[in-house]
Amino acid sequence: MKRLTMLTSGIAICCAGMAMANDDLISLMDDPTQWAIQTGDYKNQRYSELDQINKDNVGDLQVAWTFSTGVLRGHEGSPLVIGDVMYVHTPFPNIVYALDLKNEGKIIWKYEPKQDPDVIPVMCCDTVNRGVAYANGKIFLHQADTKVVALDAESGAVVWEAQNGDPSIGETNTATVLPIKDKVIVGISGGEFGVRGHVTAYNMETGEQEWRAYSMGPDSDILMDPENTTHLGTPVGENSGTNTWEGDQWMIGGGTTWGWYSADMDENLFYYGTGNPSTWNPAQRPGDNRWSMTIMARDIDTGVAKWVYQMTPHDEWDYDGVNEMILTEQEIDGEQRKLLTHFDRNGLAYTMDRVSGELLVAEKYDPVVNWTTGVDMDPNSETYGRPAVVAQYSTEQNGEDVNSTGICPAALGTKDQQPAAYSPKTELMYVPTNHVCMDYEPFRVSYTAGQPYVGATLAMYPAPDSHGGMGNFIAWDNISGEIKWSIPEQFSVWSGALATAGDVVFYGTLEGHLKAVDAATGDELYRFKTPSGVIGNVMTYESDGKQYVGILSGIGGWAGIGLAAGLTNPNDGLGAVGGYAALSDYTALGGQLTVFALPD
Amino acid sequence: MKRLTMLTSGIAICCAGMAMANDDLISLMDDPTQWAIQTGDYKNQRYSELDQINKDNVGDLQVAWTFSTGVLRGHEGSPLVIGDVMYVHTPFPNIVYALDLKNEGKIIWKYEPKQDPDVIPVMCCDTVNRGVAYANGKIFLHQADTKVVALDAESGAVVWEAQNGDPSIGETNTATVLPIKDKVIVGISGGEFGVRGHVTAYNMETGEQEWRAYSMGPDSDILMDPENTTHLGTPVGENSGTNTWEGDQWMIGGGTTWGWYSADMDENLFYYGTGNPSTWNPAQRPGDNRWSMTIMARDIDTGVAKWVYQMTPHDEWDYDGVNEMILTEQEIDGEQRKLLTHFDRNGLAYTMDRVSGELLVAEKYDPVVNWTTGVDMDPNSETYGRPAVVAQYSTEQNGEDVNSTGICPAALGTKDQQPAAYSPKTELMYVPTNHVCMDYEPFRVSYTAGQPYVGATLAMYPAPDSHGGMGNFIAWDNISGEIKWSIPEQFSVWSGALATAGDVVFYGTLEGHLKAVDAATGDELYRFKTPSGVIGNVMTYESDGKQYVGILSGIGGWAGIGLAAGLTNPNDGLGAVGGYAALSDYTALGGQLTVFALPD
Ligand SMILES: O=C(O)c1cc(C(=O)O)c2c(n1)C(=O)C(=O)c1cc(C(=O)O)[nH]c1-2
Ligand SMILES: O=C(O)c1cc(C(=O)O)c2c(n1)C(=O)C(=O)c1cc(C(=O)O)[nH]c1-2
Repeated sequence: MKRLTMLTSGIAICCAGMAMANDDLISLMDDPTQWAIQTGDYKNQRYSELDQINKDNVGDLQVAWTFSTGVLRGHEGSPLVIGDVMYVHTPFPNIVYALDLKNEGKIIWKYEPKQDPDVIPVMCCDTVNRGVAYANGKIFLHQADTKVVALDAESGAVVWEAQNGDPSIGETNTATVLPIKDKVIVGISGGEFGVRGHVTAYNMETGEQEWRAYSMGPDSDILMDPENTTHLGTPVGENSGTNTWEGDQWMIGGGTTWGWYSADMDENLFYYGTGNPSTWNPAQRPGDNRWSMTIMARDIDTGVAKWVYQMTPHDEWDYDGVNEMILTEQEIDGEQRKLLTHFDRNGLAYTMDRVSGELLVAEKYDPVVNWTTGVDMDPNSETYGRPAVVAQYSTEQNGEDVNSTGICPAALGTKDQQPAAYSPKTELMYVPTNHVCMDYEPFRVSYTAGQPYVGATLAMYPAPDSHGGMGNFIAWDNISGEIKWSIPEQFSVWSGALATAGDVVFYGTLEGHLKAVDAATGDELYRFKTPSGVIGNVMTYESDGKQYVGILSGIGGWAGIGLAAGLTNPNDGLGAVGGYAALSDYTALGGQLTVFALPD
Repeated sequence: MKRLTMLTSGIAICCAGMAMANDDLISLMDDPTQWAIQTGDYKNQRYSELDQINKDNVGDLQVAWTFSTGVLRGHEGSPLVIGDVMYVHTPFPNIVYALDLKNEGKIIWKYEPKQDPDVIPVMCCDTVNRGVAYANGKIFLHQADTKVVALDAESGAVVWEAQNGDPSIGETNTATVLPIKDKVIVGISGGEFGVRGHVTAYNMETGEQEWRAYSMGPDSDILMDPENTTHLGTPVGENSGTNTWEGDQWMIGGGTTWGWYSADMDENLFYYGTGNPSTWNPAQRPGDNRWSMTIMARDIDTGVAKWVYQMTPHDEWDYDGVNEMILTEQEIDGEQRKLLTHFDRNGLAYTMDRVSGELLVAEKYDPVVNWTTGVDMDPNSETYGRPAVVAQYSTEQNGEDVNSTGICPAALGTKDQQPAAYSPKTELMYVPTNHVCMDYEPFRVSYTAGQPYVGATLAMYPAPDSHGGMGNFIAWDNISGEIKWSIPEQFSVWSGALATAGDVVFYGTLEGHLKAVDAATGDELYRFKTPSGVIGNVMTYESDGKQYVGILSGIGGWAGIGLAAGLTNPNDGLGAVGGYAALSDYTALGGQLTVFALPD
């Protein structure tokens, strides 16, 4: 590990005092009139200082303009606004449009990559893409076929291209990229195809690969320092990425990295989570399966992990740990700390010290969560930091070919990719959640490169003995670990939230609504039915002194896979088709941007 | 012809005093809160008595709700509103949705026919469909593959099906149907495939075929009475549908019937026009090619023609005569008459006596029209009713393999399928027009069933020495034969207009706007950019005391075929791709309904 340590300090020296390649992005992120990054900012707070639209007038909102993307299926992510230009992306084939905000959204340029449609069936959960990124005059697109493309933001011309993965072995992409310092950091999908997850940094100007950190494998692959990389304060030790796997199963170990990325430039760290271990049949892969299901804090320059935390050792339910890490500075136990809050698929919300990796809070953010009684918070315990598994809901203990029923949450978690927002004014997190349970029957499966490597049959349904719906939109206190208010929704809320200084929180519904609620009380203040179901993330910007709110419609994603892919067998779509069948009574496929504003 | 005459009187007797199957449709058409038929009413006036939205407040219009159809490509026609239910159709695959207007547009039922996609390449001008019809508790859909389906309006269940044509010989459908009395009257497309056009009546309750009238062929096929069917007052005589053709060319003669249908129940007549003779190479088919390019007035019960008028004998430019016939009662030369006004592709607007078939007015409705100097209006002339062809623009006289340049209008005419509206308040017609010219090079082609039978290469461009745009939206005085006002548009106006008692006229643009203008002056009062280019027709209805205006977006049709079918070669799409190439700077494919209303 000497090499890695040297690398770290070497780069730290080289860059001191230098203008960063992402300086313009930082100032754009600080400017509330822009929407410069998918996540609102590096902290993933999705909070806007704009307050022209506020809780008193949001009820008057009107549709200002609209734009059809020309593509159907699930539209995740959101547009960016950089200056007077809006950048809109689409699901496969991943078209990018530059629209002129000063000229009725006229198309300045359009980039349509040529991608082999063979990649479509290799995408587990619809042909979604969570959006482009901007930095240094370039738009970065990570295509479904894992080609990373840098486009000239003004002309749409290709500046560089890099091939990040290989779809023929199941590697695809749905995530946005993290442009930071002189790098573009990208993840990979394919946990349902036995892909070994990795995170890779490319040079922002040239597209050359700078480092790659796998989720499992030898220390040199996972960029962990046995002595200095810690797990809940303890060094991870040697071979941590292989010694909790049987034989060389880590080579097809999953732990993909398809979620959201945040960063703390002062700490020189970026944060993300890893997905499920492959296969979904836990009996087939004994051990803790490190570092699947893990929160990672890595050095931006070298990729070396500073600290890690595995939330769900030896996953038995497909509770990918990829959801966003929201970075805040808050008082906890009388002390001002740098926090990281994460709403995991497994139904627990974690608040951590993002510098040290200390676990501060781990609480259920949906009371129906039943697979665990909670996390052992005693630092002196042998099982410190581990969730206590309830035997009845252990698909491992119940065994192969046994249908474990009534597990809450379902595989798509109490929350999936749909990102939460944080308002520093209320110090609350606004969380779009799923309220879905499942039956899960694991079965033995053999690995063939590029073929599904799932090994479980699922059925999903609304959480029993509850309000009958499949979702809630909640306000969460990440310090006390409590739900402040909760809005029941008929379907999962698969759209990302936006909080604003106008004390309004926005989110979309699978039926197709944009909704605005009071940040303090959750009272509904406005709703509008957009053309199709919403799985995109709400964004806001200002143009010519006027605040706008934008949202992509287009039903799809895992929850909407039945509609998106035209599936009707309830067990198809990894069990989601049956659960969300009623969606077809409310919406049809689409792909539209709707932009709202107050009347003149 | 005895047989036919007997049939007519027989039916007239049988039905006297009987309740008509279309009684409910008639009362719905009379009720301005409903939108019961694609054409607004049997007169095709597209006029609404609603005036809650009027010229003083239309500027405050807002988007009330939206719906994505789940289908891309050209969306022609409009929704219907029957009671509290809205019926929305799509292009191929011709899905029909029933939406609950009392419940945020929730989907009551969805009907998706299974159609062989092989029909798509047999459709000349995009996969459009001009909408469903309603009568007697049933929704009528005429699919692309020419299957006519009657659906139970409440449940969407199939009541009957009839196969009207054969796509393997080039027969397809894009038109709506005319539900009238106890019949559903339907047309056929395929003029670019050598189809012999026909109009067919099916029994509204059973789907049984009642009669069929071809556009050309023996008298018994064309349902013309040599003595009693007149052309400009003169009996057509025997074999009128074969004796202006060489040999049996009439068997592949074109004259398809894909346009709009109107009807005068008091006269027991319905009106429509026939399309171009096949092929587009005029040298290959000597003669007047009757009854292509003809306005037809036929008996509803028997299909027998009362009168006909061929506007463009021996077509040399593809000026299909299918555009709508707008029926009005107006004073002309001091006399109150039953009129029929028709804006032909050939650039002439015809006003006729719809009872007798007398030609009253024939004037250019775009001054750039140059292929003719006008129509001979002298009843005593040998060429009475014929347009005088300008030799320079005669593709016949210039000959095969010669490029005739600068012909105005282009093949898609001064107006194509986009229907005009009429306001009885202003006595003006509001006409969406094309302002496009062409080069036309005919070439010899041989006929193979089911294969294109076009025989000409075209290039299209904005009318030279004009405002640079490709369209105008005009107000036309059909009595004086004059343009009252004209709004220049960058692209052809391919959307149908709506006139209302609020003194507002609505239309859509290919860029995607819904526009509202002052019926008296043409001054723009409101514009909104919908998600995609508009080729649908504006409709209006009232629900819970509130007036709504609805429009389908979805770029396509002949003008938008480049975008719709992904073509880029300028000569492709029968010459439209080049002409409309700039459309891709403004809009992308879509399929959305946008519904507008005034704020509460
Ligand atoms: O393991 C993986 O590589 C992987 C990838 C993806 C993806 O790329 O979208 C999803 C998932 N897993 C997954 O488990 C999941 O719940 C999910 C939901 C969605 C979505 O966009 O709606 N994608 C994915
Ligand atoms: O001759 C025919 O059978 C036929 C059919 C159609 C059609 O079915 O849409 C069109 C035409 N011709 C045609 O000439 C034409 O300009 C046209 C435009 C459109 C349209 O929907 O935009 N269809 C058609």
